[in-house]
Amino acid sequence: MRDVAVIGVGMQKWGELWEKSLRDIFTESALLAIEDAGVDHIEAMYIGSMSSGLFCGQEHISSLMADYLGVAPIPALRVETACASGGAAFRQAYYDVASGAHDIVLAGGVEKMTDVSGGGATFALSTAADAEYEVYHGVTFPGLYAMMAVAHMHEYGTTRDQLAHVSVKNHKNGTMNPHAQYPFEVTLDQVKNAVMVADPLTILDCSPITDGGAAAILCPLDMAKKIAKNVPIRILASGHATDSIALNDRKNIAWLSGVENAGEQAYKQAGLTPKDIDFVEVHDCFTIAEICVIEALGFFEKGKGGTGAESGETHLGGRIPVNPSGGLKSKGHPVGATGVAQIVEVTKQLRGECGDRQCGDIKIGMTQNMGGTGGSCVVHILTSE
Amino acid sequence: MRDVAVIGVGMQKWGELWEKSLRDIFTESALLAIEDAGVDHIEAMYIGSMSSGLFCGQEHISSLMADYLGVAPIPALRVETACASGGAAFRQAYYDVASGAHDIVLAGGVEKMTDVSGGGATFALSTAADAEYEVYHGVTFPGLYAMMAVAHMHEYGTTRDQLAHVSVKNHKNGTMNPHAQYPFEVTLDQVKNAVMVADPLTILDCSPITDGGAAAILCPLDMAKKIAKNVPIRILASGHATDSIALNDRKNIAWLSGVENAGEQAYKQAGLTPKDIDFVEVHDCFTIAEICVIEALGFFEKGKGGTGAESGETHLGGRIPVNPSGGLKSKGHPVGATGVAQIVEVTKQLRGECGDRQCGDIKIGMTQNMGGTGGSCVVHILTSE
Repeated sequence: MRDVAVIGVGMQKWGELWEKSLRDIFTESALLAIEDAGVDHIEAMYIGSMSSGLFCGQEHISSLMADYLGVAPIPALRVETACASGGAAFRQAYYDVASGAHDIVLAGGVEKMTDVSGGGATFALSTAADAEYEVYHGVTFPGLYAMMAVAHMHEYGTTRDQLAHVSVKNHKNGTMNPHAQYPFEVTLDQVKNAVMVADPLTILDCSPITDGGAAAILCPLDMAKKIAKNVPIRILASGHATDSIALNDRKNIAWLSGVENAGEQAYKQAGLTPKDIDFVEVHDCFTIAEICVIEALGFFEKGKGGTGAESGETHLGGRIPVNPSGGLKSKGHPVGATGVAQIVEVTKQLRGECGDRQCGDIKIGMTQNMGGTGGSCVVHILTSE
Repeated sequence: MRDVAVIGVGMQKWGELWEKSLRDIFTESALLAIEDAGVDHIEAMYIGSMSSGLFCGQEHISSLMADYLGVAPIPALRVETACASGGAAFRQAYYDVASGAHDIVLAGGVEKMTDVSGGGATFALSTAADAEYEVYHGVTFPGLYAMMAVAHMHEYGTTRDQLAHVSVKNHKNGTMNPHAQYPFEVTLDQVKNAVMVADPLTILDCSPITDGGAAAILCPLDMAKKIAKNVPIRILASGHATDSIALNDRKNIAWLSGVENAGEQAYKQAGLTPKDIDFVEVHDCFTIAEICVIEALGFFEKGKGGTGAESGETHLGGRIPVNPSGGLKSKGHPVGATGVAQIVEVTKQLRGECGDRQCGDIKIGMTQNMGGTGGSCVVHILTSE
C-alpha cells in the first residue's frame, strides 16, 4: 500500500446553524478543505454521517453532496458507524488512496442535529445503542455513560471532581478555538452544580447537540510533496475495532476494549508506543468517556484516567495534552463530523497553526473516535515528519 | 491491487419476515455465506443498509452485527448510498481485499422494511430523493419513476405493453427462484389492470416492500484457489458513479447517465464491451428502470430498451438474459440487501447452480445496483474463468 498524506482540511464555526441546510454545511467544509489543499479536483469522496435520515429526513447524501459540491459523477459514499462515522470515512479514504484506486480523495463528515424538535435528537442518538436490549427499556446515552461513570467510581475510586476537571480543561482549551460552539470557561463548581442529566453526569459533563461539518483532502505522500501548499501530514496508522453494542454484554463496563483494540492496531502499524505520542484528540462525548479512553489507549494505567485532568497531565503543556481543540465538550459534537474534525485539529497542530492552543513543536498526533458506548472505535496516528 | 474472488454466498427466502429481527436476518445470511465459503473466520465486514434508522430505529449496525455474528472485535462498517448500499458494500469489500488490508472479508446487506406502519416505509424510501426539492413537495419514488416512464414514452415511443412485459418476464423467472418473495407468474393484462400507483405504473410495475439479507465472502484469488469449496468467481471490475440526486437537474430524465458512467468504468477496467457479457442482474425497482438501465449499459440502443422483454431478447435463452433471479420485482427489494443479492445470483449462475433458471454455460455476468432515481450506481463484472 502507498504512503498517504493529508494536504488540506476545513471546517466552519460549529453551533446551531439555523441558516444553513445539511448540504450547505457539508459543501462549505468541503470547499474549505479543497481550498486549503490547493487542488482543482477530487476523484472520490467518503462522507461520515450518523443519522441524516432521522435528523433531516435525508439519506443518500453521497449523491446529494457530490451533486451540490459539483463533483458528480465521481464515486461518493456515506459511511456510518454511529459517532465514529467521521473517523471511519477518513479511514476509507485512506484505504482508497493507499490501495491506488484514486489519488485525490475527500473525507468529510456532517450532521445537522438541531432541526428535530421534542426528543427527536435524543431518539436519533439512541439508535447507536442496542434498540432491542437497551433503548426499548428507556435508557439513552447519558444514562449509559452514567452507568459507566458509577462503575468507574466504584471500581477504581474515581471522584466526582475528577469527572468535572475534564470539562473544565476542555472548555478552557475551547476558548482558544475559533470553531468551537461553546468557547467559554466553566468552573469546577459550575460543572458539579449544573442541571443533573443522569447521576453523576450534569449537563456540563455532556457534549452538546451541534450542527457542523469537517473535511480533509488525502493524496499519496509522493504527490503531496509536489503539489501541497502546506506541510503534508502523513498518516502513520489506522486502527478500527468493534465491541459488543450493549453494555450488558461486557465483562467490565468501565473498560473500553474496542478502544484498546483499535489503539493496539494503530500502535503496531506505526511501530510506536503511547510514549511516542505528543498529543491526542479523544472522543469526550461525556467526561467519563475521556477518562476511560486515555486508559484504554495506554496513556494512563487502568483506573487512573481520572488523574489526568485533575493533575494537569492532560492540559496544554502537560505530559500528554488531551483535546487541545476543546474536544466534543466545548467544540461541539455534530456526530458524523466529529471524527473528521479531530483530523482537522491534528493536522493544524502538526502544521503549528493553532495559535494560543498550539501544543508546541510537536511531531506525532493521534485521534480516537468512537460510536455508541465504544461498540466501534477508530484510531489514527499522523505525523509531520 | 490484488485479484479478488467471491468464494461463498448466502441469502434466505425473502418476504415479510415477522418472526426475524434485523439482526437475525443479517446474521442468518452471513452464516449461510460463511458456510458456503467453508472459512472458519472473517477479518473485516461491510454492511449495506439504506435506512435501518427509519425502518427499525437502529443505526450502528456495524457494531451490532459484528457482536451478534460473534466476530467482534474485527472492523465492521455500514455503508449507505440508498438502494445501491449493497453494491457499495461489496465494492468496499473488494477494495479492502484488493488493497491487501485484509484477506477474508464479508460483504453483506440487510433491510427490514415491514416493521413500520402507515406511510413509514414510503417515507423512509423517499429519503433517497432530494428532501428539499422533491420530497417536501409531495413526490415519492413511484411518482418520480412514473415521470421517467412518461418521458421515455414521449421521447422514444416506449409503450405501456413494453413496461408490462418487464414485469411478466421477471415474475416468470422468479417462479424458479426458491428465495423469491413473490414467485408467481403475472399476465400482461394483470399488470396493466392492477391497482394504479402513479400513472402509468400499477402496483405490478413496482418492486415490493421486503425483509431480507444477503452476504458474500471475498478473498484474494490466489488464496481462493487453495481454500474454496466451490469454483472461485473472480471480480473483473467495479464501477461507481453519481448523478444529480433530483430529476429536475438532469438534461434528460429518460436517460440514466450515472448508470452509463458506472458501466463505462467497469467495461474499461475489465477490457470488455456489452457484447462480452453473458447475462446481467439489473435494478428493476420499477419496470421503467430496467428499460432505462439496459440502454445505459449498452445492451440496447438509446430509446430501444422497451423492446428487450417484449421481443424476448432479455428472457432466459435470449440474446442477453436480464434478471434471471426474478429481479427486484419478483425476488423482492429489501433495499440495502439488493446489491449483494445480485452478487449471490451472479455467483450461483457462474457456478451453474441455478436449476431451471440457469442461463446456460455462461462465463461472464454483470450486476447493476442503483440508488434513488439513479443518483448513484454501482456496477460489477464477474467471471468463472
